[in-house]
Amino acid sequence: MHWMRFRDPAGAVRRGEYEDGTVSFGDRTYDVEDVEVLAPAEPSKIVCVGRNYAKHAEERGEEVPDRPLLFLKPPNAVAGDGDTVTLPGDNYVEHEAEVGVVIGEQARNVDEADAMDVVAGYTAADDVSNRTDQSEEQNWVRGKAFDGACPLGPVLATPDEVPADADVELRVNGETRQSSSIEHFIFSVPELVAEITEYLTLEPGDIIITGTPAGVDELEDGDEVEVEVEGVGTLTHDVERR
Amino acid sequence: MHWMRFRDPAGAVRRGEYEDGTVSFGDRTYDVEDVEVLAPAEPSKIVCVGRNYAKHAEERGEEVPDRPLLFLKPPNAVAGDGDTVTLPGDNYVEHEAEVGVVIGEQARNVDEADAMDVVAGYTAADDVSNRTDQSEEQNWVRGKAFDGACPLGPVLATPDEVPADADVELRVNGETRQSSSIEHFIFSVPELVAEITEYLTLEPGDIIITGTPAGVDELEDGDEVEVEVEGVGTLTHDVERR
Repeated sequence: MHWMRFRDPAGAVRRGEYEDGTVSFGDRTYDVEDVEVLAPAEPSKIVCVGRNYAKHAEERGEEVPDRPLLFLKPPNAVAGDGDTVTLPGDNYVEHEAEVGVVIGEQARNVDEADAMDVVAGYTAADDVSNRTDQSEEQNWVRGKAFDGACPLGPVLATPDEVPADADVELRVNGETRQSSSIEHFIFSVPELVAEITEYLTLEPGDIIITGTPAGVDELEDGDEVEVEVEGVGTLTHDVERR
Repeated sequence: MHWMRFRDPAGAVRRGEYEDGTVSFGDRTYDVEDVEVLAPAEPSKIVCVGRNYAKHAEERGEEVPDRPLLFLKPPNAVAGDGDTVTLPGDNYVEHEAEVGVVIGEQARNVDEADAMDVVAGYTAADDVSNRTDQSEEQNWVRGKAFDGACPLGPVLATPDEVPADADVELRVNGETRQSSSIEHFIFSVPELVAEITEYLTLEPGDIIITGTPAGVDELEDGDEVEVEVEGVGTLTHDVERR
């Protein structure tokens, strides 16, 4: 099943079932073109994982970590499908295709064996990264937490929709830049949930973004980005410089 | 004026005026002992500043930064006056007395000259820091974002209550560990608001914690911590190991 958050033509925020270009809530079915698609959840925090594909660690000249490298994006970073992300200043910015794990219930100290019980499903994400600042700061706040730095969507796909070897691909203006599969994760989703909830309580709607594969590259004014996750669909956003 | 968020004896969450051990909302006045004191705001994020007093940078063997060192605490880190913070695992944990700036309205790209317009007031904070993990990770998530890592309170004091040279003091079991004044800030509150809102939108209730002075030291099971900020009052919390 695919769930879409959207604003209906009357302005109400709804969570409906998405199917073949339509979204249904109550007794109404809308063409997706006629609604405003919203990010699939309203996270109180986005917990992000660095270097979770060995090849991406390699391209950044970094070692594979022995436990997940974690960082945070706050709610101001959320953007939705179809949104335009304003690149911060004149900085050098790159895309990072990611799979987002949407948490379904409040969770603390969850064992790996039980971790999937707290996962509502998956979405696609772009961890838009301002390398100019990221390279100069200890914690990646200017680098990763600026407004719009985390487009999410277009839907939440329940876990049964997403195969264990789901493909992840990112295209810029139609050209493929990143292509891999979640089977290459260094740390699995249950391992991530267990590690994070050893320290932090996850809330319903919170999101874990699971790292990016090799192929990160520059974004420029006007670029259109597509992040396709097998079983989820395609998140689209563009970028602008002001 | 001093505002206190609290849960009244009927279970309702209120924001009332605090004065001399009592808190008033509507036509009711309660003794503070008869209500549950809550953190003075519900931040969507806490933006934290490192090394904002030169002497603390020195004691950690670090240089004074040329722009604010920023990191994040998510909402799960919030604790209130009187709460007990559970130290994560067997880690080495330290207190950090801080002054919290509570944001009053949505703010982006605010100039220094206008920054105080978006500040609702001040509170006291303890940036409880798990050094064992902090020293091993790039971004301080396990180190600084664990549940309860940011006690806040006991009230929000409007800016007129807090002098420009307000004293900040932290005591553990009655013994003074940190003592300084906000006149020693490297970056002023307007400078911090301007710098942060160049990248991130601040929301009403969001909090900036402004760095800690020298004197950080270990916390152990059963310790009682008091953070006193002149013009605000005294935040009290204790800590436990499980």
